[in-house]
Amino acid sequence: MTELRNTQWVLASRPEGMVAPSNFERREQEVGQPGEGQLLVRNLYLSLDPAMRGWMSDAPSYIPPVQIGEVMRGGCVAEVVSSSAAGFAEGELVFGMFGWQDYAVVDVAGPGPVSKLPEGLAPIDALSALGWTSLTAYFGLEDVGKPEPGETVVVSGAAGATGSVVGQLAKLKGCRVIGIAGGPDKCAWLTDDLGFDGAIDYHAEDVSRRLKELCPDGIHVFWDNVGGEILEAALNRLALHGRVVFCGAISGYNDSTPPPGPRNYINVLVRRARVEGFLVFDYVDQMPQALAALAPLVQSGQLRTREDIREGLTSAPEALVDLFTGAHLGKLMVHISDPSGALA
Amino acid sequence: MTELRNTQWVLASRPEGMVAPSNFERREQEVGQPGEGQLLVRNLYLSLDPAMRGWMSDAPSYIPPVQIGEVMRGGCVAEVVSSSAAGFAEGELVFGMFGWQDYAVVDVAGPGPVSKLPEGLAPIDALSALGWTSLTAYFGLEDVGKPEPGETVVVSGAAGATGSVVGQLAKLKGCRVIGIAGGPDKCAWLTDDLGFDGAIDYHAEDVSRRLKELCPDGIHVFWDNVGGEILEAALNRLALHGRVVFCGAISGYNDSTPPPGPRNYINVLVRRARVEGFLVFDYVDQMPQALAALAPLVQSGQLRTREDIREGLTSAPEALVDLFTGAHLGKLMVHISDPSGALA
Repeated sequence: MTELRNTQWVLASRPEGMVAPSNFERREQEVGQPGEGQLLVRNLYLSLDPAMRGWMSDAPSYIPPVQIGEVMRGGCVAEVVSSSAAGFAEGELVFGMFGWQDYAVVDVAGPGPVSKLPEGLAPIDALSALGWTSLTAYFGLEDVGKPEPGETVVVSGAAGATGSVVGQLAKLKGCRVIGIAGGPDKCAWLTDDLGFDGAIDYHAEDVSRRLKELCPDGIHVFWDNVGGEILEAALNRLALHGRVVFCGAISGYNDSTPPPGPRNYINVLVRRARVEGFLVFDYVDQMPQALAALAPLVQSGQLRTREDIREGLTSAPEALVDLFTGAHLGKLMVHISDPSGALA
Repeated sequence: MTELRNTQWVLASRPEGMVAPSNFERREQEVGQPGEGQLLVRNLYLSLDPAMRGWMSDAPSYIPPVQIGEVMRGGCVAEVVSSSAAGFAEGELVFGMFGWQDYAVVDVAGPGPVSKLPEGLAPIDALSALGWTSLTAYFGLEDVGKPEPGETVVVSGAAGATGSVVGQLAKLKGCRVIGIAGGPDKCAWLTDDLGFDGAIDYHAEDVSRRLKELCPDGIHVFWDNVGGEILEAALNRLALHGRVVFCGAISGYNDSTPPPGPRNYINVLVRRARVEGFLVFDYVDQMPQALAALAPLVQSGQLRTREDIREGLTSAPEALVDLFTGAHLGKLMVHISDPSGALA
């Protein structure tokens, strides 16, 4: 086998405030051979996720930050180029944390799982409908929000990759679902294509007033991806014993000073509510069950996703900025290469 | 029976900012006779509680506010003067929401339970060791905080009537307990008399630095009575999967604008923590079990309380102000009258 050249994006500097393309630096390396229990994979698509902003900072968080000079962390779907691990064969499609690069040598035993793409799914499904964002929606509803049929579920960042799946899964559970998103196109997608019961355009509408209209019985489960003023508006409408699934606070991720906490957090006491943070990576052991539950919904078309695919590994740093400015529509990912002929 | 004169404190105006004695007005009335299912009771002691500030406001809350001109709501221990209710006899000691007055005619069927004082307890125990504050501690630990043996429990407002019981109950569960209180006397009481493992004087010490010293494994359960900066300090030390029992936010109760929310509330997500509000009045059905669990601890001296007793119903409005300025030590109550000879 000839030596393969590997283009990588490494972290060059830690962002202050908004992430910038200059925080990354390109590097070329030769690719090593997989040792025992390892695979050499060629990345097809790279997923871009809000959590990446946190991995770039050295503030204490749930996993260690990416070090300066280290390949940027990222979830990918890839094709196995050569395998020294039992149960994995050349040409199979796999997904896992393979990083911002063309090729990766990975341990199948971890850290972080290497999963095979289920039959009948496309490579992008691995990062979108079955990706971390969908798994986040799945575990956050099953284990934290626990909505009952007939309850009202409100989702912020509803047109995003996680939020749109949260809403669809809640609809499948028999809930009334209201989404909050930025712009009429996103809102129309939620109600017309995904079957949400209502959508609020926070760019153009008074979120508090609209929540009052659309949630006459209050909000039983508020799924928060955003934080800030939208969180405050939702806390004001929280039903008795309401649950806030605290999934993210993207409105504040790029601020150098933390955003103020919700001024009306006393409502958590008054409504005897529960606010709970959770992280999909805590549920790695339960991934197989989750994928088994989600895959048929994708195959049958009951769970629909939308992807915003940027071309070429070189586009990754610019695309990450768009993730935070909202200049994307659906699950944001980068196309790196195509599957080899046999599987294309 | 001759007509009894009843002195009452009624709500005269709603406070703006700090509660003031001028928010109350004295009224004299004649006392009626109990109808079927009712008792006429003579109040012995009136409990003063932080929740009263909320009952004086017309902001939406968990129960309707006291109306202007209505007798101020309050928990009391009382002696039955005459009974038209099965199972209650003249001379028995009972406790319930009998209000800021000498006498009350109450329905034993509610709203709000009328309980009998267990054998071997003193009247003040009904409002202190077995009062709403102790029940709050009991249900908040059992149902919300759920500390495990060996976990670290931190309590704010620790020398208060609720906080001091929280700490003692957590010690009985085998937890390491740290209290936060204002002043060296309160702190000494916690460690020397009640057996807390540590105490932090927030008037004199850097709470964040001391929490770091005293909670090397982080805070597993933070019981918050106070809110504000102490809540922020605790959120910074929260252990993974920590629980915040959101019991009160007394630091902000008398502000006319709400206090800022915790600036570091993102820690709830990062630590995958749970913040849960609760209200003792939701547990009325389980009160008998709770009283059965607490009474032996009081009788055996394993659960100790301290009372700050003000003399005479006339002192109630001034005493309520002291509740919020911290110018009291232990459970604050007002002595109204004594039991009749037979039970004294």
